[in-house]
Amino acid sequence: MCRWLAYSGSPVSLEDLLFKPTNSLVVQSKHSRLGAETTNGDGFGVGWYSAQPNPGVFRSTEPAWNDRNLRELSVHARSGRVFAHIRASTGTAVQQSNCHPFRHDRWLWMHNGLIRDFPAVKRDLALAVEPGLFPDIEGSTDSEVFFYLALTFGLEQDQPAAVASAVGFIEDVGRRHGIENPIQMTVATTNGDTTWAFRYSSEGVSRSLFRSTDISTLQAHFPDNVLLQGLSEDARLVVSEPLGDLQGAWEEVPESTCLVVHGGEADFLAFSPTAA
Amino acid sequence: MCRWLAYSGSPVSLEDLLFKPTNSLVVQSKHSRLGAETTNGDGFGVGWYSAQPNPGVFRSTEPAWNDRNLRELSVHARSGRVFAHIRASTGTAVQQSNCHPFRHDRWLWMHNGLIRDFPAVKRDLALAVEPGLFPDIEGSTDSEVFFYLALTFGLEQDQPAAVASAVGFIEDVGRRHGIENPIQMTVATTNGDTTWAFRYSSEGVSRSLFRSTDISTLQAHFPDNVLLQGLSEDARLVVSEPLGDLQGAWEEVPESTCLVVHGGEADFLAFSPTAA
Amino acid sequence: MCRWLAYSGSPVSLEDLLFKPTNSLVVQSKHSRLGAETTNGDGFGVGWYSAQPNPGVFRSTEPAWNDRNLRELSVHARSGRVFAHIRASTGTAVQQSNCHPFRHDRWLWMHNGLIRDFPAVKRDLALAVEPGLFPDIEGSTDSEVFFYLALTFGLEQDQPAAVASAVGFIEDVGRRHGIENPIQMTVATTNGDTTWAFRYSSEGVSRSLFRSTDISTLQAHFPDNVLLQGLSEDARLVVSEPLGDLQGAWEEVPESTCLVVHGGEADFLAFSPTAA
Amino acid sequence: MCRWLAYSGSPVSLEDLLFKPTNSLVVQSKHSRLGAETTNGDGFGVGWYSAQPNPGVFRSTEPAWNDRNLRELSVHARSGRVFAHIRASTGTAVQQSNCHPFRHDRWLWMHNGLIRDFPAVKRDLALAVEPGLFPDIEGSTDSEVFFYLALTFGLEQDQPAAVASAVGFIEDVGRRHGIENPIQMTVATTNGDTTWAFRYSSEGVSRSLFRSTDISTLQAHFPDNVLLQGLSEDARLVVSEPLGDLQGAWEEVPESTCLVVHGGEADFLAFSPTAA
Repeated sequence: MCRWLAYSGSPVSLEDLLFKPTNSLVVQSKHSRLGAETTNGDGFGVGWYSAQPNPGVFRSTEPAWNDRNLRELSVHARSGRVFAHIRASTGTAVQQSNCHPFRHDRWLWMHNGLIRDFPAVKRDLALAVEPGLFPDIEGSTDSEVFFYLALTFGLEQDQPAAVASAVGFIEDVGRRHGIENPIQMTVATTNGDTTWAFRYSSEGVSRSLFRSTDISTLQAHFPDNVLLQGLSEDARLVVSEPLGDLQGAWEEVPESTCLVVHGGEADFLAFSPTAA
Repeated sequence: MCRWLAYSGSPVSLEDLLFKPTNSLVVQSKHSRLGAETTNGDGFGVGWYSAQPNPGVFRSTEPAWNDRNLRELSVHARSGRVFAHIRASTGTAVQQSNCHPFRHDRWLWMHNGLIRDFPAVKRDLALAVEPGLFPDIEGSTDSEVFFYLALTFGLEQDQPAAVASAVGFIEDVGRRHGIENPIQMTVATTNGDTTWAFRYSSEGVSRSLFRSTDISTLQAHFPDNVLLQGLSEDARLVVSEPLGDLQGAWEEVPESTCLVVHGGEADFLAFSPTAA
Repeated sequence: MCRWLAYSGSPVSLEDLLFKPTNSLVVQSKHSRLGAETTNGDGFGVGWYSAQPNPGVFRSTEPAWNDRNLRELSVHARSGRVFAHIRASTGTAVQQSNCHPFRHDRWLWMHNGLIRDFPAVKRDLALAVEPGLFPDIEGSTDSEVFFYLALTFGLEQDQPAAVASAVGFIEDVGRRHGIENPIQMTVATTNGDTTWAFRYSSEGVSRSLFRSTDISTLQAHFPDNVLLQGLSEDARLVVSEPLGDLQGAWEEVPESTCLVVHGGEADFLAFSPTAA
Repeated sequence: MCRWLAYSGSPVSLEDLLFKPTNSLVVQSKHSRLGAETTNGDGFGVGWYSAQPNPGVFRSTEPAWNDRNLRELSVHARSGRVFAHIRASTGTAVQQSNCHPFRHDRWLWMHNGLIRDFPAVKRDLALAVEPGLFPDIEGSTDSEVFFYLALTFGLEQDQPAAVASAVGFIEDVGRRHGIENPIQMTVATTNGDTTWAFRYSSEGVSRSLFRSTDISTLQAHFPDNVLLQGLSEDARLVVSEPLGDLQGAWEEVPESTCLVVHGGEADFLAFSPTAA
């Protein structure tokens, strides 16, 4: 059920980020180590910020391991803030508009997990989306409706509070439909300056999530690692699973946590849904 | 803005129907003679009934003139009831779930035209869809929401009345949003036994629509025409534009009309929207 | 490196054949049990014979597990002779013209395995193809060149001899280029009446290959198995790996063997390459 | 039969180049004014140079007017040297490996036109390709074989001479097969520093080709044109057809000419094929 990566720091080649690591996201698309599904071949997406105000989004329904254009873009694009996602559909159609990350103005959003029994709650959730935002929903996934709920609840103003409200609302609607554990999620969202990553599930057994540890210590230990050596001190990665076997490079994000990454700061906040 | 074809009669090769006529639907995909757009290259779809209760639907985002699988399927499939549609998007994404015909159980639906200013009215229209049907909406087009409104208003029971109610509702919502001519349409729908075709627009200047005239007369006049000679006496075609230049072969469907094709019968009913 | 299935017998639904078995070919596309690769997601193809002289071929670059049109076709098409193939590319591009089965007039051909170091020998192999056939090569795979070599060496006249000559030639060219084990293969080919299946590799350790055992015994043992009950007595399957766990249903095809399936007969012939 | 554009000069946004002009290449993909075909919807490609030694190539089988990823890439990529091509197939498959521009190391190549009766001469032409280059041919087009012939005849050393030899060879092979006018072409090739553009056909009636005139004069005349104002004095465009109606902006490239663009210099050389 999907794997993702969020990078911020000095501009890096997308190729270094997405293809070169031992357990890169492209490798995970065929053989995920920690995912609920080993194959994440139902499309992928990359969001990246350049000199433009809004990020670019390149999405495709092909498996990431096969897409030649992804490789071409990755060799030639550099960015200081990158979101990338590989998809394992939980039932909705494999089409570009269902690939993550989703974009709204400056904002990107990607999700690993699911809203359980989505067909049963889809209408109630969609109706709660701010009417002015409703026509912007392009695809048919739970993840995109979740994004638009977060926007409705104020994502552009107070991110942890908006996501807490959206999750609280989803859990409330789900329980009213008799669904025991309405949501399972790791989510990342960014406005291009700060990244917020969430790990939560109604059942308290959430999908895996890791953040990179201090880059300068790692650079000292692994002087031959090309990706590491190119990174600035404030570079930070948040990933569904470690990109390789470097000991000490990765730290698990705890359950029910929001990780806020701004420059070199990466702070944990406790996260719990807000009752509707 | 799209072209379509609805066939009923003795089982025919899809190739004879879709590829062989001079101005076949596949030819129209590149060079429509009468369409609002000359190019209808934003995907296509074919629905056909076989021995199964529900029809098959083959849809693709490639232009029909390029799709090799469409040609293969057409050579090998025969059917006594075929819907085919080529798309010129009016703005929504080019993806399989936006290609016509749409299917619900035994029912097929295809549309040429548009609901004007759809983003402005989409939410109001979607909310009116029967809640149990809502999660079945897979794509993002006006045409599919129109189908689900018709189902909501009783398409499976009384087809002309259901479409009249759906159109009346769409016009009412549109006018409340200040949209002058809310709908432009030729629509075909079938349950596998009868086909209903509608020609209507709020402004009274509707997209072109034709029905074939008596087959036996045509067969006598054109003894060398392969498609014609293979047809049973009760074969009927309803098309956005004539498939060739056979004089006398095609008769225009009048404005504000519902054409009901059942066996060899093809009767005109007056059509007008029902006020909500 | 690919999995395939060859069916002959009473007309069956492609859905029963490709989707319904426990370890169906579509299941194998994501999780092969015995393949060199567990994921066979680099496209697929189905070839089937209908009333037309030449078979239809439906090929796509999407993973088989995702392709909606494959499912639609499978529900509605029935055939008494079906070839199906799921691809794991050994390096050449993922494009329709590289998907198996390949077709030449009435003939189909599909291959699991590879010609080793194909770039080094491609030119020598392509030059040996009959000049009149050369322009019909559409893709860039080793498997298609192998097919055209077999046609050049007389596939339409004496199938085991033609394949033996083609393999002998490939081994000879490979060894002249210093390649130790030039070919690894299971291959199936048919003219619509008889199927020839080959299991061979230069190193004598070939990809897995199985044939179904006597259908009537199996039908007696498994009265609830839907696919089995619909089959005629002369139905025969040749598969890269068993489609389920029915004990006694599958028999391994020995190394260096050609299996000839004609009606209910399925005979083993010894197979060895013919020196050029 | 295809349209193309070659840009060199100060780095520009691909969006300004490919989407914003009145008669942009993307507009031409649906409605070409001067092309042999009005619709060029059989795929497209963009090649662009960044900080990497070799150019990036983004190619797709979708019509350019529909491809969302082309638009995303165009908004975010800037380059001082861009090749772009929209395809109208003359018969070969619509697949990525048949989309222009083709790349070999630092070199790009794109072609509008055709080698007549290509199936008849394909083998003779392919055999003349340098054996070491032969396995790099990935697709099935005449245009790619033409590129590899040019490379074989020394494209990396003396470009006008290599193309003259390749064309001479193609005409010779064609005539030996009884083909009256073996080649029709406008071609562009670049190594990232210089662009060579050729206009030639055996019959002396070649596809249209234009170059931009002096930029500073144009900038003075059209102070409101966004694309123009962003260009350096040495910016040069070579295009199949003018990108708009600016009077005096475009000059036709004469028949049988090679145009060499290096920095602000754009010189005409007479071009004629070299007898083999």
